[in-house]
Amino acid sequence: MTGAPPTYAIRSRPNGRLTARIARSMLAGDGLEAFWSWYTERAALSAHRVTRIPLEELSGWSTDPETGDIGHDSGKFFSVTGIDVHIPGAPVPRWSQPIIVQPEVGILGILVKEFDGVLHCLMQAKFEPGNANGLQLSPTVQATKSNFSRVHRGKAVPYLEFFRDSARHGVLADVLQSEQGAWFYQKRNRNMIVEVDGDVPVGENFIWLTFGQLHRLLRVENLVNMDTRTVLSCLPFTSQDSHPLIVIPEDDFHQALVRSCSAVEGSLHSMPEILSWITGIRAQSEVVTRVTPLTRVPRWHRSGGAIVHENGLFFRVIGVDVAGGSREVASWSQPMIEPSGNGIVAFVARRIDGVLHVLVHARVEPGYVNVMELAPTVQCTPGNLGALPLEARPRYLDVVLNAPPELVRYSVPLSEEGGRFYNAVNTYAVVEADVDVEDGADYRWMTLHQLAELLKHSNYLNVQARSLVACLHSLSS
Amino acid sequence: MTGAPPTYAIRSRPNGRLTARIARSMLAGDGLEAFWSWYTERAALSAHRVTRIPLEELSGWSTDPETGDIGHDSGKFFSVTGIDVHIPGAPVPRWSQPIIVQPEVGILGILVKEFDGVLHCLMQAKFEPGNANGLQLSPTVQATKSNFSRVHRGKAVPYLEFFRDSARHGVLADVLQSEQGAWFYQKRNRNMIVEVDGDVPVGENFIWLTFGQLHRLLRVENLVNMDTRTVLSCLPFTSQDSHPLIVIPEDDFHQALVRSCSAVEGSLHSMPEILSWITGIRAQSEVVTRVTPLTRVPRWHRSGGAIVHENGLFFRVIGVDVAGGSREVASWSQPMIEPSGNGIVAFVARRIDGVLHVLVHARVEPGYVNVMELAPTVQCTPGNLGALPLEARPRYLDVVLNAPPELVRYSVPLSEEGGRFYNAVNTYAVVEADVDVEDGADYRWMTLHQLAELLKHSNYLNVQARSLVACLHSLSS
Repeated sequence: MTGAPPTYAIRSRPNGRLTARIARSMLAGDGLEAFWSWYTERAALSAHRVTRIPLEELSGWSTDPETGDIGHDSGKFFSVTGIDVHIPGAPVPRWSQPIIVQPEVGILGILVKEFDGVLHCLMQAKFEPGNANGLQLSPTVQATKSNFSRVHRGKAVPYLEFFRDSARHGVLADVLQSEQGAWFYQKRNRNMIVEVDGDVPVGENFIWLTFGQLHRLLRVENLVNMDTRTVLSCLPFTSQDSHPLIVIPEDDFHQALVRSCSAVEGSLHSMPEILSWITGIRAQSEVVTRVTPLTRVPRWHRSGGAIVHENGLFFRVIGVDVAGGSREVASWSQPMIEPSGNGIVAFVARRIDGVLHVLVHARVEPGYVNVMELAPTVQCTPGNLGALPLEARPRYLDVVLNAPPELVRYSVPLSEEGGRFYNAVNTYAVVEADVDVEDGADYRWMTLHQLAELLKHSNYLNVQARSLVACLHSLSS
Repeated sequence: MTGAPPTYAIRSRPNGRLTARIARSMLAGDGLEAFWSWYTERAALSAHRVTRIPLEELSGWSTDPETGDIGHDSGKFFSVTGIDVHIPGAPVPRWSQPIIVQPEVGILGILVKEFDGVLHCLMQAKFEPGNANGLQLSPTVQATKSNFSRVHRGKAVPYLEFFRDSARHGVLADVLQSEQGAWFYQKRNRNMIVEVDGDVPVGENFIWLTFGQLHRLLRVENLVNMDTRTVLSCLPFTSQDSHPLIVIPEDDFHQALVRSCSAVEGSLHSMPEILSWITGIRAQSEVVTRVTPLTRVPRWHRSGGAIVHENGLFFRVIGVDVAGGSREVASWSQPMIEPSGNGIVAFVARRIDGVLHVLVHARVEPGYVNVMELAPTVQCTPGNLGALPLEARPRYLDVVLNAPPELVRYSVPLSEEGGRFYNAVNTYAVVEADVDVEDGADYRWMTLHQLAELLKHSNYLNVQARSLVACLHSLSS
């Protein structure tokens, strides 16, 4: 109950002006020399030493002798516990596994501002222990509640006030989204994009970049981090009307991609049909999950200071020690999840009457709050498939693996969240292929505009699909 | 994986045609004589005897001797258990209570069909033991999974196949929505409206009604049941363009109401602002709930065959025995929730630049899957307020109670779901008042078009707000 009563006057609905402004910034992709010299300097200065250590030697973290669960001594941050999963009718109907529980909602926020009529994003060079390259390009703010309430008595989180008091500024996007449902239990972060007018001091780890520049950097291996990708995916790159970028068709693929971003170009399925398909799957799928002590998770054992599966597959829970650098606190140790190998995350895409559609998969994962989220066509770690029943092999994996090079529109290895996942790298790919999909299957062709409509709301697209949406938009300028 | 591959051809996005067809049906409100004679006949034929019985005497239901929880011997239908609630910072931050757990997703579906170019809804005269009037007007299908998988070996649910195989027909709406978050733990039903072309045989308990006729019947006490109201609220009565009903402005209020249904008329807050406000509250609100055995719920006791609060307030869990009639099974007994008194559910409405806005309240209830849902301005049982702290008194209750009669646009007592709630009646009201609301409060002025946009998705509007939205639309024709 603060502030003055608002002025009671109507405003008409937003027109296409924001899309046009975003498009202008997308076209401003040159001039990355300054970025690279800044980034190289930051990388040299932020040198951290990351050492694997046994879980027993973590400082500030303890294993409960009874449950085997791992938690921080403050009770904050996150904990590692077990989960029993039952999905009747799935290729693997029952299993148990370790999982991260992090009930706090964090903020992932990008601050944007116009310079000379061109929107720029304030990006951060941020070290995370799990990052494949150490330093990656992160949102302006990337903070858990424990961070910004300063549980670890570190430095204040810079720029946080713009996001905690966002109603004073222009909010372009603000939506709760899930993260990895295979590794996190019901985790959600607030994805925010806030536009400011006034002066913004730029800290030494920060830099202003256009959407076009960010899009070029998305083609670099392990540079733009997962949090940046998910926030970017929530931006309205799409248009209710004809898309402003339609005027620069470089080739057929580009034109089909830009047309996919506009509501007026149409789509194979209508939105009511897509929503009904989603509702039907959510109503009919049964997922029973039960949090359980780690000591009661069968086939997973504490061994050599880590928690490992008896086959050595899937992932390990390891401990890491981090020393030096410029983060909020100088050094710390923590548990992390280390996947057993690199994965593949891919959309199969197809032009339908000249409009690009991507094949989304209705994917059930134990950690989703709402049973099912839309995922890329293929999302798997090929090294694990040998241990699973044949039906668990993703239906279109071979279409992706065997795609002729000229139809591979995007293929870049990118890291998952480096604060929780150690060296978790997936190759993100977009592959054109005219595959046929039967009605009634758990796959649907959708346009980018339809995905953007769903991205205004929580829990429709999983984090891998959101990453790929950001990658796809990077191809349109 | 059934059916043939679809034809890969694009369709343009739906135009305003559906809204125009709905509007035409809204204008066809006359000719209710046939309805009333049919209804009177059905009421005479469906006579049931509902008797209160002690919970101990329920047939087919048992109380677990250890937990005190009440469940059906089949393990299906629903159970009554306890819940501990902790909402830090709320007027009542901690309490425990009995609650219904019903993990199954049911179907609430209305079948629609055009006769002579006018859409009609296939409505059902359905007896429920808790209905204030016995027989009420219910959707074509109103069935839990236990009903339609025929756990009680009763008759098959008529018309169910249209909703289970809805993709063959035209789906106008299909969305999972919550029910009473104070009495149900995370219950959700699938709200569906399906349009068919071919012949539909009409059973003796069924009748075709236009939207206009349904809207007139919404002004009758305890006739249109809760399930019909929530399904109707999910229909796209609103328009992206100028609304077709704008041509018949009967008076200023009617004109403001119809303008509120159109996106082009604008609104006080933009949709990104509304979504950001919702996201912020969901991210910051903490609700900790824990299901607990009924025997461990303090202040609630088994007494005289019921479960009652020590003050006699809030609600009671009672047993009822039902005999006779034409339902799927001839007679049965079951536990029910009986509220301690009638409630008030009201929107305060205000014209802003000639566009009607209603004041929605961000309401946190223990049974919501997503922390908070948008509720009417006022939603309470006045008889319970004396036992609660003063801060728990709804902020705008007196505005509603003291409204001059000429500003009360709607005021009708309507029943909540009669299959679970015994004689649960709320007066649903819409009251015009130019109250001021501060920025930062947990209230926002929204148009009907904005509410309709949110109603395409799950868990934005609570069941009371959805009922009131249906009532509001009934005033526009």
